[in-house]
Amino acid sequence: MTLMECCQVPVVSVPPETPVFDVAGIMAEQNVGSVVVVEEKKPVGIITDRDITVRVTAEGLDPKSVPVHAVMSAELLVLPGTTGLYQALLQIKAKGVRRVPVTDGAGALSGIITVDDVIRLLAQEMDGIASVIRSGSPVV
Amino acid sequence: MTLMECCQVPVVSVPPETPVFDVAGIMAEQNVGSVVVVEEKKPVGIITDRDITVRVTAEGLDPKSVPVHAVMSAELLVLPGTTGLYQALLQIKAKGVRRVPVTDGAGALSGIITVDDVIRLLAQEMDGIASVIRSGSPVV
Amino acid sequence: MTLMECCQVPVVSVPPETPVFDVAGIMAEQNVGSVVVVEEKKPVGIITDRDITVRVTAEGLDPKSVPVHAVMSAELLVLPGTTGLYQALLQIKAKGVRRVPVTDGAGALSGIITVDDVIRLLAQEMDGIASVIRSGSPVV
Amino acid sequence: MTLMECCQVPVVSVPPETPVFDVAGIMAEQNVGSVVVVEEKKPVGIITDRDITVRVTAEGLDPKSVPVHAVMSAELLVLPGTTGLYQALLQIKAKGVRRVPVTDGAGALSGIITVDDVIRLLAQEMDGIASVIRSGSPVV
Repeated sequence: MTLMECCQVPVVSVPPETPVFDVAGIMAEQNVGSVVVVEEKKPVGIITDRDITVRVTAEGLDPKSVPVHAVMSAELLVLPGTTGLYQALLQIKAKGVRRVPVTDGAGALSGIITVDDVIRLLAQEMDGIASVIRSGSPVV
Repeated sequence: MTLMECCQVPVVSVPPETPVFDVAGIMAEQNVGSVVVVEEKKPVGIITDRDITVRVTAEGLDPKSVPVHAVMSAELLVLPGTTGLYQALLQIKAKGVRRVPVTDGAGALSGIITVDDVIRLLAQEMDGIASVIRSGSPVV
Repeated sequence: MTLMECCQVPVVSVPPETPVFDVAGIMAEQNVGSVVVVEEKKPVGIITDRDITVRVTAEGLDPKSVPVHAVMSAELLVLPGTTGLYQALLQIKAKGVRRVPVTDGAGALSGIITVDDVIRLLAQEMDGIASVIRSGSPVV
Repeated sequence: MTLMECCQVPVVSVPPETPVFDVAGIMAEQNVGSVVVVEEKKPVGIITDRDITVRVTAEGLDPKSVPVHAVMSAELLVLPGTTGLYQALLQIKAKGVRRVPVTDGAGALSGIITVDDVIRLLAQEMDGIASVIRSGSPVV
């Protein structure tokens, strides 16, 4: 299974100059906890609701005058949609990130996969496969 | 296993009149994503970094003049520390909540357990117990 | 949750003098992979379909003349039904056993729990609790 | 990840005419619970320790005079090594089988994957990915 087959589509994105106030509004309206920052369709950063609380509210900054690029995380793990899920897991674990923007063949943002998505996916698989175990009667 | 044995201790808490600005500062300093609001030691609400983004920043409110009780979630699942983990899971699933303040015998806040904690716990158990399966040789 | 609440009941058992041939017939009819050997209602051993293949068939013994006590596993992990599941997991992992006879207050056999049962149980819990995670919207 | 990358290699196999007595001996020596039956290198059946107990011992047959093809399971799920693990899981769940012989490009037996292997694999992934969740601090 590739990321293309299991990532969330569509993904909410904004340009780097967007004020944090607008980003917070988008998070509220779209019911998302993170927004990908894109420049010419390519992911250049990510911002979460936590980033806004910690880097804007706690710092006493004015969300209407701070552009998202000033407080986003610019160090990203970005993976092409053709990456296999298992390969993606290796990188997610190695980097310890919770959210991975997924790109198409041209490097443009096309989706996002989160650790929460992966946990739901693994839990479903585990439950499905565990149901194959019939206690005491290992047929074939 | 009871909640007392697996919940996070200590838990960060604030009184209801605390300004959201101070709460955001506490979240940044203590590296936590939620803070329990207590009155006379008893949990009366919970606030997350997301709540601050959605209910304060997105609404254009001033975090220095909004007290936490105005934007916290007051509908809580609170469980005594003597609750068994399995009973707790039934309630967490039924209510769909991600964070549960845990109380002592007097009803005072003594810890917190989150869905993330539970997932880590179950994943560890699953990995430990799966290692008992020796392929092809079911001894005893 | 105690073992009493999650173990398999009833459990198939035979006296120590039962010929292996009869035990194999019981395994086929009852569709079970193991049978507990009891003496005065107390578990004294366990025999699996694998034990019969390895200790009787492979050794060229006659299943009609070998009593089950001669080829059963006598080193057992037996736990009272009042044992918590979590405590049981610790012992199952420590001893590396796949099947645990469960006893009542008088020490009499009352059920059995297997690693396969535990895996199904944990997988169900994991799937249930993972469904609480709503991507991007950590409510409460 | 393909089956080729996660299946057990080598896999124990026997020709169809092998007496059950010899198969039982191989299971004991090689410490395996199943043996694949092959004809001209291709898997044509599988036999487990349980099959021997139920179809030979319980039936009162002589293991030295019964050839394995008479008591093996001939209805198999066989998958090429290039099959993705996720695709394999779909088929394992659909057919409810516990063991799947894996073949090379020429259809010759090259490995085996069992439900137990899959559970260990999923449990390891789950534990690894769950460790990425840091309570209260969803970084990136």
